[in-house]
Amino acid sequence: MMTGEQYKKSLNDNRETFFEGERVRDLVTHPVLGPCAARVAQGYDHWYSPGSDAVSPLMAIPHSSQELKERIPLQHESDIVSAVTYQSIMTLTTVATRIGDALPQYAERIRSYVRGAQHRDIRIVECITDAKGDRSRPPGKQDDPDAYTHVVDRRKDGVVIRGAKLHITGASLCHELMTIPTKAMKPGEESYAIACAVLVNSPGVKIVDTTYAPRHPDARNFPVSSKIHMPEGFVIFDDVFVPNERIFLDGEVTYAAIFAHSLGLWERLGGLSGMAEEADQLVGFAQLIAEANGLARESHIKEKISEMIIHATLVRASLEAAIANCQVTSEGAFPDELYTNAGKYHAAANYNSMVRHLHDISGGSILTAPGIADFENEVTGPLLRKYMGTMTGVDGEYRARLFHAIRDLTADSYGGWKAVTNVQAGGGLYAQRIVTRKYYDLKSAKEKALHTAGIKTAEK
Amino acid sequence: MMTGEQYKKSLNDNRETFFEGERVRDLVTHPVLGPCAARVAQGYDHWYSPGSDAVSPLMAIPHSSQELKERIPLQHESDIVSAVTYQSIMTLTTVATRIGDALPQYAERIRSYVRGAQHRDIRIVECITDAKGDRSRPPGKQDDPDAYTHVVDRRKDGVVIRGAKLHITGASLCHELMTIPTKAMKPGEESYAIACAVLVNSPGVKIVDTTYAPRHPDARNFPVSSKIHMPEGFVIFDDVFVPNERIFLDGEVTYAAIFAHSLGLWERLGGLSGMAEEADQLVGFAQLIAEANGLARESHIKEKISEMIIHATLVRASLEAAIANCQVTSEGAFPDELYTNAGKYHAAANYNSMVRHLHDISGGSILTAPGIADFENEVTGPLLRKYMGTMTGVDGEYRARLFHAIRDLTADSYGGWKAVTNVQAGGGLYAQRIVTRKYYDLKSAKEKALHTAGIKTAEK
Amino acid sequence: MMTGEQYKKSLNDNRETFFEGERVRDLVTHPVLGPCAARVAQGYDHWYSPGSDAVSPLMAIPHSSQELKERIPLQHESDIVSAVTYQSIMTLTTVATRIGDALPQYAERIRSYVRGAQHRDIRIVECITDAKGDRSRPPGKQDDPDAYTHVVDRRKDGVVIRGAKLHITGASLCHELMTIPTKAMKPGEESYAIACAVLVNSPGVKIVDTTYAPRHPDARNFPVSSKIHMPEGFVIFDDVFVPNERIFLDGEVTYAAIFAHSLGLWERLGGLSGMAEEADQLVGFAQLIAEANGLARESHIKEKISEMIIHATLVRASLEAAIANCQVTSEGAFPDELYTNAGKYHAAANYNSMVRHLHDISGGSILTAPGIADFENEVTGPLLRKYMGTMTGVDGEYRARLFHAIRDLTADSYGGWKAVTNVQAGGGLYAQRIVTRKYYDLKSAKEKALHTAGIKTAEK
Amino acid sequence: MMTGEQYKKSLNDNRETFFEGERVRDLVTHPVLGPCAARVAQGYDHWYSPGSDAVSPLMAIPHSSQELKERIPLQHESDIVSAVTYQSIMTLTTVATRIGDALPQYAERIRSYVRGAQHRDIRIVECITDAKGDRSRPPGKQDDPDAYTHVVDRRKDGVVIRGAKLHITGASLCHELMTIPTKAMKPGEESYAIACAVLVNSPGVKIVDTTYAPRHPDARNFPVSSKIHMPEGFVIFDDVFVPNERIFLDGEVTYAAIFAHSLGLWERLGGLSGMAEEADQLVGFAQLIAEANGLARESHIKEKISEMIIHATLVRASLEAAIANCQVTSEGAFPDELYTNAGKYHAAANYNSMVRHLHDISGGSILTAPGIADFENEVTGPLLRKYMGTMTGVDGEYRARLFHAIRDLTADSYGGWKAVTNVQAGGGLYAQRIVTRKYYDLKSAKEKALHTAGIKTAEK
Repeated sequence: MMTGEQYKKSLNDNRETFFEGERVRDLVTHPVLGPCAARVAQGYDHWYSPGSDAVSPLMAIPHSSQELKERIPLQHESDIVSAVTYQSIMTLTTVATRIGDALPQYAERIRSYVRGAQHRDIRIVECITDAKGDRSRPPGKQDDPDAYTHVVDRRKDGVVIRGAKLHITGASLCHELMTIPTKAMKPGEESYAIACAVLVNSPGVKIVDTTYAPRHPDARNFPVSSKIHMPEGFVIFDDVFVPNERIFLDGEVTYAAIFAHSLGLWERLGGLSGMAEEADQLVGFAQLIAEANGLARESHIKEKISEMIIHATLVRASLEAAIANCQVTSEGAFPDELYTNAGKYHAAANYNSMVRHLHDISGGSILTAPGIADFENEVTGPLLRKYMGTMTGVDGEYRARLFHAIRDLTADSYGGWKAVTNVQAGGGLYAQRIVTRKYYDLKSAKEKALHTAGIKTAEK
Repeated sequence: MMTGEQYKKSLNDNRETFFEGERVRDLVTHPVLGPCAARVAQGYDHWYSPGSDAVSPLMAIPHSSQELKERIPLQHESDIVSAVTYQSIMTLTTVATRIGDALPQYAERIRSYVRGAQHRDIRIVECITDAKGDRSRPPGKQDDPDAYTHVVDRRKDGVVIRGAKLHITGASLCHELMTIPTKAMKPGEESYAIACAVLVNSPGVKIVDTTYAPRHPDARNFPVSSKIHMPEGFVIFDDVFVPNERIFLDGEVTYAAIFAHSLGLWERLGGLSGMAEEADQLVGFAQLIAEANGLARESHIKEKISEMIIHATLVRASLEAAIANCQVTSEGAFPDELYTNAGKYHAAANYNSMVRHLHDISGGSILTAPGIADFENEVTGPLLRKYMGTMTGVDGEYRARLFHAIRDLTADSYGGWKAVTNVQAGGGLYAQRIVTRKYYDLKSAKEKALHTAGIKTAEK
Repeated sequence: MMTGEQYKKSLNDNRETFFEGERVRDLVTHPVLGPCAARVAQGYDHWYSPGSDAVSPLMAIPHSSQELKERIPLQHESDIVSAVTYQSIMTLTTVATRIGDALPQYAERIRSYVRGAQHRDIRIVECITDAKGDRSRPPGKQDDPDAYTHVVDRRKDGVVIRGAKLHITGASLCHELMTIPTKAMKPGEESYAIACAVLVNSPGVKIVDTTYAPRHPDARNFPVSSKIHMPEGFVIFDDVFVPNERIFLDGEVTYAAIFAHSLGLWERLGGLSGMAEEADQLVGFAQLIAEANGLARESHIKEKISEMIIHATLVRASLEAAIANCQVTSEGAFPDELYTNAGKYHAAANYNSMVRHLHDISGGSILTAPGIADFENEVTGPLLRKYMGTMTGVDGEYRARLFHAIRDLTADSYGGWKAVTNVQAGGGLYAQRIVTRKYYDLKSAKEKALHTAGIKTAEK
Repeated sequence: MMTGEQYKKSLNDNRETFFEGERVRDLVTHPVLGPCAARVAQGYDHWYSPGSDAVSPLMAIPHSSQELKERIPLQHESDIVSAVTYQSIMTLTTVATRIGDALPQYAERIRSYVRGAQHRDIRIVECITDAKGDRSRPPGKQDDPDAYTHVVDRRKDGVVIRGAKLHITGASLCHELMTIPTKAMKPGEESYAIACAVLVNSPGVKIVDTTYAPRHPDARNFPVSSKIHMPEGFVIFDDVFVPNERIFLDGEVTYAAIFAHSLGLWERLGGLSGMAEEADQLVGFAQLIAEANGLARESHIKEKISEMIIHATLVRASLEAAIANCQVTSEGAFPDELYTNAGKYHAAANYNSMVRHLHDISGGSILTAPGIADFENEVTGPLLRKYMGTMTGVDGEYRARLFHAIRDLTADSYGGWKAVTNVQAGGGLYAQRIVTRKYYDLKSAKEKALHTAGIKTAEK
């Protein structure tokens, strides 16, 4: 396994990464990205065990519903790059299970890659969403054939790929890019049916970073986002060579969707469990601020908090059902598709309403609570402490800090990032409806209806 | 155990029951209530096993999450009086567990009663909702002291009770009325803290029946409700004597609410599992009618059905979570309160929207599909078959019968009964919010929020 | 103008109408349909003015926003057949305005027909919805070519039509059927582009009636529906001859949709104004029952009623905006399409939630309040009066009657009819979205967005 | 009237204003607040007319529904400080009308003040929300008596006030603070019933500014907020003297609420009209991005945009109804309370769902679209233009700029500000429910219900 220090050194590998118009020469000392690298390094130190057989708990594969459940808090504690590495490992393992019979050589290559990744203790991110061009047209019918990542050259020892992958969280801070087709492919789209692991410092890989990191001079007013932000990478494959042993699919169009579906399962499980946790946080903030405002016993406030509680419980129930009904195979334990997808959909679709409740309960000071520096100013400090306080026992600065956290989490750059990400992670709401529909037993529902109506199937 | 025939005879016990202004002299031959009695009798025959030790599976107590789960389909197959008997048995068992330490003599009396009921194979209904008078005032402050059922006289061998219990499904068709306080009582309200089992033919018990049974001359147009309707009883205790051995609480006000809460758990589990099943039925009807209309591939129709599917799955997930997290005690297995209540709330709160989707998908023929007799008329029959049919393979009468079932289930007397009952069973939506809030771990949510905000509890 | 008595006589014209499997020989004395005829007759007497120039206010055309507004309460007071007659007159007038330039001969025929109808003081219903067959296919591609009403024969003096029209409220009780294409037609579908006025007693016209009339022996428990029910007609044109002077379109496919759109406008205005009125009624019932239950000051009850009030106000605001922005032409004043459609959509889409609030506020006695006969029974009457009463000043029977009205209006046959009709009248929710979209100024919205983004159109 | 230059000079008046811990010595040259001052100055130049009688159109009082309607686009074009000045003028005028009979001397003082303000062409902001302390307790029962602004000393020529007013948009950039009680006061709370106009540079006035201004080094990525941001002032009255002629209420507790209610009307009208405009913008962005993505014809995308259109139309309808039903008095035209409040509530309550639709339609590039500097970099620029473009005719940078605008407007600091402000402006959702309820004709609704139920009022 790697230590944090080893990880930091590993980033110095000539990767071509850009931040707001400039090439980043040293990630570790960069004012915005450096702290992100430090965060991942901390994770390495946290999980580190000595010994050549040691495997990070976030890279080990769960084999029972119990183990599956135990992984969830580990992901929430970890930095997002590590969490995504877990999802990548699990995606590949799920793919190996699903294609094992039909494409045994790829399945074996995947298993071998996973073992190596565990051993090397690397960080892997998932590269799925293509640029897509005109979304009403398939890959082969675009004005620009590179709108979807594809093979543009073929050599004896590997292939050359071209295209772009968007919204790749932590791309600049990982070691490898698990690159998979964004959707099902059809005959004639063979060159687009490419799945592979790409080293982030391969020649031709270029990453443009964006971030929701607070750019305000005083990070203390951003108590949540300042501690966890991680860049999003716009990853460009500008004719990148990938050697054969890193290729997991190459042209077998009928299997292209299995990668996206497998990733979807783990991304949505991650999304679902994250939103279950966040839903509890939102409830907690609502209750804390209601108490600080003196409104915790007000009927309409309690009603809103009760709605938030019910939402949090429904999301949690979906997660519980997804794990309790997991599928255990010889390769690992996979959560139930139906409950995972329906739960993720419900959580995302109602997140904005829960935030609205929190805003409604809290009041305008979410926006206008003075900053920490205002509390430090000798003229305004005492006055703000006086007027932001509400009663004996509720300190003005404590209350201001609650407001800062609520703003940061729900009504500022990071809040916007969450709102969009909750909906878009694992595909937009429409995608999640389709997957839920796919796994729901519609035939049985029709039989129940006919039975209720007293209509024999024969009559129909 | 009893056979159906024995059950029918047992009803001839001088019970004082009324239907639409008239005393019912013979339940079994009554045009509206007779079929209900026959339905319960069928249940007896269905579950019958010979032998003096035989116990109906709906009267046996589950002891594991697996047994708890297996009871659910049994309830759905059974008539509602039998299902309510199961809920009564489980309510009493839960009460015995919860009051066992403090009031061992009552707990023992309850256990003994349950054993007797299992042996006698009787049907028991739950009498909880009082007349309540002015709901803003407690029992002791009403203009009429009888607004809540209470003890009005006390003898050496028992008590005399007075009051009314409303919405008692199947009261006229059971053997005993499990009568419990409708809510928490306070010091000074001792006479209202009365729980007991009352024989339905006790002198002074009067039952006024109402029904959603179809009153249309042709029951064939009501394929659902005509087969399952059961009267609601307005049960009046007009000074009814109850002997001591049938009394489960008498004046211990601090324990009064335990009965209602225990009943609430089982009523809501019943409601939740029923709504999970119905949600599937609604999905099934939506898909069947969309197919019959030729609209199953229409995007906006699929979107609506997907929403119905997600709803059905969320409700089912709550049920799964409630059972997977059940509490197993030495007396039995009890479902998790939090998931049961939140799931019941969500299912009830969104039921109307699911019905709206079904109506939106189906079209106006829900209301205007001609009846079976119109299909039999030699002039109109062939024309209706022609015009209600939609394509080769979709027969006009089949489609009309689908519409009849949808109307009966969602847009006629029984549909109205369901809409109200889903919301009101186990208390209105407000009551379910309160119970959910009670069982949610608010303290932990606050800690999560403080942790997220980077505020140490000490600072607060 | 006609009197009620003259109207009743006019129904004795050999029309071929069926009720639950039987030909109806005498409408006026029929146990279910007779009271409907009497209701229409009362309307005649109510609006009657002597003199050969007299025109019913419900047949006169409004020419200003003020007159348009004044018509609305008149429709609510009138029986539904008269209200539909007004809609038919206005539909035809709108069509005449819209096709006047292109098809002056038809426009003139329509105006002449309208003048005659005003003079003859007849009742006209709108026949639009065809049987439709497989809805994914156009009229000409159906397995049965009669799935949409069409011309099957052509004579010098007129045409012969065949097909069926569904959900025709009051068809059996009117004089003429305003028959129009159900949707846009395309080249090749000329025979389906037929609009005309058909006498209800034309040979070949057959009507199969369905009804939400209460079939319970005691109508007193159905205080709303027993007084207003009106049958829905399944109208079959079994080769019906229509003379030339009654034909308003015949083959001009590009104009076929104008009839449906014009009807849609007036149907949706009727729907919108009806739902505005009903929304007030629902608020009123919620408040009355909350007061009778002693809960009017309870916070969560007030919150729910406030939501109902906001809903009622939004629906009313749409109606106000539709009328304030009406289009005044030389032929008459027509409500604004955008506000009418958006308002109708909103009212229908949220109706079920308002009903849920009413059910949640009221309690289970909606379903189980004893009937009037139970109050008359000398044993049960006094007891029910006692226990259904809640406090000094709230009589048990008064409260029971409130519950009966709420059940009848929202949770019984008529309630189901309303729930479906609100969604389906004027097309389902999808149709109303499309029309709203059509009339919304999307171009202007895009310009507002570009302006906000600081993007000049040229840059785009 | 003043020019922009004169306005800028007028700010140099020793006002005591703070920004992020520092006293601001020169507003006009301050890096964050300077551009705000310039924005207000531009407004002065825009509205400037010479002549001593000239009055800014935003300070003139509308006297008809037509004039009321014409003011609305003027407010949207203007900077927010000017818009708030209009609301202040109208609030005072409304108050004068409402208290004129009872307190003629104050009414006259107000009218005189308004005339002076028009003549002086000053900018006025509304100071209403107090610190409030423990919200469950009234002003006189707080741990700190200054939690609500109150009179702490009384001199012959005026009073001294103490307290704080929160969320005062543009306080640092105006001339006067229209200070009014935050709510109804009761006997015993006379010192809190104080309304007055306070010069912003009065000794003792201290303002702590917060802002949603983008702090990112490149404002081009924030095309909306960088152009319109305005600071929120936390205004502290640290023993401020107010002369008698500037006092509009002083101790008359029964009239205290009239100020807040009058302000509420105009704040909510402003909120409603602003949200009507924004709803159109959101629709416009949704359509533009759907077109740029090639998804404008996709059914589920059209459905979501249709829902946004219906929302925008309902909000607009409320505004139309509020203006069409305005109350015209001798002092001016005031919008209808009922429609204004219900419309504002509906717009605010559903805003988050509309944003969710926009996010769902747009995709993750809302967050991850590279910045303008990335497009300027010679390595990444061409690649980003290639991959952010979608088809011939949709330029990558154009599309990126659409995403920047959507992020800025809905998913970044300003978006968070809007989400909270929409809910909180004019009081939270609860406050708007209460006001709507107050103005709704509940008595008439009850009569409609009784009439529907066939119950005569006497029977009740």
